[in-house]
Amino acid sequence: MERIGFIGLGIMGKPMAANLVAAGYEVTVHNRSSAAVDELVAAGATAGEGPAATAAQADVVVTMLPDSPDVEAVVLGEGGVAEGIREGSLFVDMSTISPAVSRRVHTALAERGVEAVDAPVSGGEPAARDGQLAIMAGGSEEAVARAQPIFDVLGKATTHIGPPGAGQVAKAANQLVVALNIQAVAEALLLARCAGVDPARVREALLGGFAASRVLEVHGERMLEHAFDPGFRIALHRKDLAIAQQAGRDDGAPLPATSLVASLLDALIAQGDGDRDHSAIGALYERLAGE
Amino acid sequence: MERIGFIGLGIMGKPMAANLVAAGYEVTVHNRSSAAVDELVAAGATAGEGPAATAAQADVVVTMLPDSPDVEAVVLGEGGVAEGIREGSLFVDMSTISPAVSRRVHTALAERGVEAVDAPVSGGEPAARDGQLAIMAGGSEEAVARAQPIFDVLGKATTHIGPPGAGQVAKAANQLVVALNIQAVAEALLLARCAGVDPARVREALLGGFAASRVLEVHGERMLEHAFDPGFRIALHRKDLAIAQQAGRDDGAPLPATSLVASLLDALIAQGDGDRDHSAIGALYERLAGE
Repeated sequence: MERIGFIGLGIMGKPMAANLVAAGYEVTVHNRSSAAVDELVAAGATAGEGPAATAAQADVVVTMLPDSPDVEAVVLGEGGVAEGIREGSLFVDMSTISPAVSRRVHTALAERGVEAVDAPVSGGEPAARDGQLAIMAGGSEEAVARAQPIFDVLGKATTHIGPPGAGQVAKAANQLVVALNIQAVAEALLLARCAGVDPARVREALLGGFAASRVLEVHGERMLEHAFDPGFRIALHRKDLAIAQQAGRDDGAPLPATSLVASLLDALIAQGDGDRDHSAIGALYERLAGE
Repeated sequence: MERIGFIGLGIMGKPMAANLVAAGYEVTVHNRSSAAVDELVAAGATAGEGPAATAAQADVVVTMLPDSPDVEAVVLGEGGVAEGIREGSLFVDMSTISPAVSRRVHTALAERGVEAVDAPVSGGEPAARDGQLAIMAGGSEEAVARAQPIFDVLGKATTHIGPPGAGQVAKAANQLVVALNIQAVAEALLLARCAGVDPARVREALLGGFAASRVLEVHGERMLEHAFDPGFRIALHRKDLAIAQQAGRDDGAPLPATSLVASLLDALIAQGDGDRDHSAIGALYERLAGE
């Protein structure tokens, strides 16, 4: 079994690292704050002394960080992964970040004889805890195959999307579709409410036809019940849409609907709803209608 | 079995009327042009002499017409259904029209002792032919129950949404969700293409998670294959979005995303694509990206 260095023990990273320890991997962990490190050490992991030292003790380095600048700093910054990682090791970034940054990291590590895989996930904290994440991987066939035993512990399904950065592109695409499908359901249910028609009946009827979606099922029900505890936080979804928007600008893909829904998330954040579930787009629509 | 008057033998109405004849109903048919009438008569129907006369010979009058003004003219205009229909009869409009017009027709017929049901459908011509339509009904419990045996011939499922007009509201909601979900898929697949990532892989990965929808499945595949023969024509979908937009204005429901996608359909129509399938929104995005 390859030795793992795991950096980033947040809401997602902590249960993922714990699953790797439980699966019998020798795991060295690092995190900016130490409480999560102590928990993992109690479960059988080793504490690493910063990113470079953590990488030096590992065959595969996994990162799970909040955003693109965090990954750049932890990998390419002073005392970063790139300084410690040994030639022939594998780097796997499971954060959701910009495809451009992901490719930059890939190139920088390749110069040190290290292959990189971008492998963002979907499914959220419950799926991280249960090892049921959906993993979208970008990288060479060989690199993704080498990471596969680790993915098998963390997730239920891995799709190899394409070359380095492709996993991040798929994740960005996923996040924009989810946001737009939520907005669609919000408009449909608002139209029903304002017309004096039971939105629950409308949702039910729509689930039987071409309007059916996972979002209509799950987030549609949240809207009906005003159940806006996260779930997936609006602030995080806004960050993911910024990644999609930046990728669209970088690559010449105009995304007008993504821009519109991003503005609605900005409005929710401005109104103090950044920590609510993204289905609260439905609540914003009710406010727009003066309810 | 109640005697049926069926008015409007277009792409949808002709196979629907034929299914009623095949189910053993005595059906009098009327259509503006006579070719479809001749076909139905050959199948066992009787030709009616205009809307009023057709209604006079029936216990249940069914209309399947293109748009709100057509229904208003055929029902409330000179020589219309309202002039011929007998007290105690049932009127069932299966066209997709404005909820406001639907309520107006309901009120006008109620004054003549006739109950009205609005029962727009989804599923398109194949479902009309196979008696597999999804039916969204608005009207009183009694009226919808009286229409149910007819709905059972024409469709696979009827949802009673609410009072008169509620079926049209549900249909408008359905049509806006479908349009927005198509737009979401178009942006996601464009982002992938422009980033040099195989959009087919992205679609596949997204089908496994929260981005999953019938539209991603069906229209996503059409976009990948550039298979833009209808299906459901852009011009018709634009008409349905106009109904949703008007209902939004009437009832105070702001629908910014619906407005945006409606503008994209306007662009497609301006570019000569009104008769292509609505999944051609994907083609418009490719043009926006200069492909």
